[in-house]
Amino acid sequence: MTMNVEPNRSFDLRAYLSIRRARIDATLESYLALEEPRALYEAMRYSLLAGGKRLRPILCLAACELAGARAEIALPTACAIEMIHTMSLIHDDLPAMDDGDYRRGRLTNHKMHGEALAILAGDSLLAHSFELIARRTVGVPAQRTLAVIAELGRAAGPRGLAGGQVEDLAHEGKYGVGVDVLEDIHTRKTGALLEAAVLSGAILGGADALTTARLRRYAQRLGLAFQIVDDILDLTSTCEAVGKNVGKDASARKATYPSVLGLAESRRHVEMLIEHAMSDLACFGDRATPLVALAASLAQSL
Amino acid sequence: MTMNVEPNRSFDLRAYLSIRRARIDATLESYLALEEPRALYEAMRYSLLAGGKRLRPILCLAACELAGARAEIALPTACAIEMIHTMSLIHDDLPAMDDGDYRRGRLTNHKMHGEALAILAGDSLLAHSFELIARRTVGVPAQRTLAVIAELGRAAGPRGLAGGQVEDLAHEGKYGVGVDVLEDIHTRKTGALLEAAVLSGAILGGADALTTARLRRYAQRLGLAFQIVDDILDLTSTCEAVGKNVGKDASARKATYPSVLGLAESRRHVEMLIEHAMSDLACFGDRATPLVALAASLAQSL
Repeated sequence: MTMNVEPNRSFDLRAYLSIRRARIDATLESYLALEEPRALYEAMRYSLLAGGKRLRPILCLAACELAGARAEIALPTACAIEMIHTMSLIHDDLPAMDDGDYRRGRLTNHKMHGEALAILAGDSLLAHSFELIARRTVGVPAQRTLAVIAELGRAAGPRGLAGGQVEDLAHEGKYGVGVDVLEDIHTRKTGALLEAAVLSGAILGGADALTTARLRRYAQRLGLAFQIVDDILDLTSTCEAVGKNVGKDASARKATYPSVLGLAESRRHVEMLIEHAMSDLACFGDRATPLVALAASLAQSL
Repeated sequence: MTMNVEPNRSFDLRAYLSIRRARIDATLESYLALEEPRALYEAMRYSLLAGGKRLRPILCLAACELAGARAEIALPTACAIEMIHTMSLIHDDLPAMDDGDYRRGRLTNHKMHGEALAILAGDSLLAHSFELIARRTVGVPAQRTLAVIAELGRAAGPRGLAGGQVEDLAHEGKYGVGVDVLEDIHTRKTGALLEAAVLSGAILGGADALTTARLRRYAQRLGLAFQIVDDILDLTSTCEAVGKNVGKDASARKATYPSVLGLAESRRHVEMLIEHAMSDLACFGDRATPLVALAASLAQSL
């Protein structure tokens, strides 16, 4: 028996994503009503409600369902994960870091609201995300919610997002960065939160150890594939298509997969990762349909 | 029967604080060993282990004991609170905000490590603090730990530290700020985390509703008194004595209690707050000795 997995052809991924995205957008909006100080809430909402793909929260909900629970119980956590992701985008875009002008098709947070508010909006989203999980998660044993908070705290901190950004900045402009360093950067910078999103859903849904291990491996491979695709698109796309500055990696001489492995080899690497990610979930049959389809669609975006 | 409380004269507050501070310093050090990326951990440790007064963690442990539990069970939370406090100091000192050069007697984080690392060290401390509480708290029902995380997430976010800093910046250089605005700023900026520190200890210790309410009021009054004292010292002290830039409030034309109420009236306000804070705890007798002594000592620092 081969472990090759064919995505379910009758599954309408586009409709699935669109419904889930709408649900997440509406919940995010309801979680973050305008309060005083207005300028701060406006800055938070500006980036959070700018219409991202909501990939991480969607993965979280899907993993919760794969584990056998209703997606509903993971909704506060899924939204919190998007807040953490948004925080990292706002801070990474700051002049002291990547100095980005555009993000998600509009001016970056500090270009719109100024640096002080951008820093504080990021801090606020991060702090609020943990409050949200602790306060709003219902119908789940408290011990599981604590495990989720531990995972996400780790993913956002020095072993995850923040550490990855430090390594990324440290290697900027350096030639001769190897694939191992590159993988380490991306494992932290993109991989950690994506993995934590899948794991959080699994934990909340009550997944057993084997399911959790498989989902973790799936998430690691998907996360890395996702980053390589991002690197490739930065090189081959237009600003209009991806909604943020492109070609910036090359002009900042950032180490990327295409710059280290070449474009063709990077594409082959993505395809291999996605194939493995899909086979990680083969044993779950139909329950894994959305997660398998998501991985498959990533290959098609190249 | 009068509600006036005399601090216990036989209690050696100085020795108590010194022992607690040493315990907290050692635990913080053990919680944050040097890892990769080294530069990030060094930046985090630079500000965290710079030897602050550790007032917030000490309050947390004392409230836990007042509630009838061992201080030990609140130690991870107490350390997490100091991490959150340190994060807010690092970010508030950034050039885009208060642009401070010195803090706790040494160069500010961004002056020493650069802006990017200072921002990421703050983010890391904030994220790590929640992981720490979720992962290391033992011997406490999980539901209480979640309640603590909710309190601290609130205190660090837009309704607390971050919101207070936004309001503080918004009123900089403006004349005619009233006492009510000033109190709102400080309730968020200093009060929220100090209150959360006391409440967290109370929650972990299993305090009943009445005890919690009294401790909350004590913390609110102490927090405000603490801020007014800080404002007064900024005006009357030397840089050497307080270890950070002084006279900055006046040169930045920040609204402070002395600038709004005058020095004499500010002192009277502090004394009244402290007296009320002490009487909030009168009914707890000897169990409140450290918290009462702490409040009393604040009056003496003027």
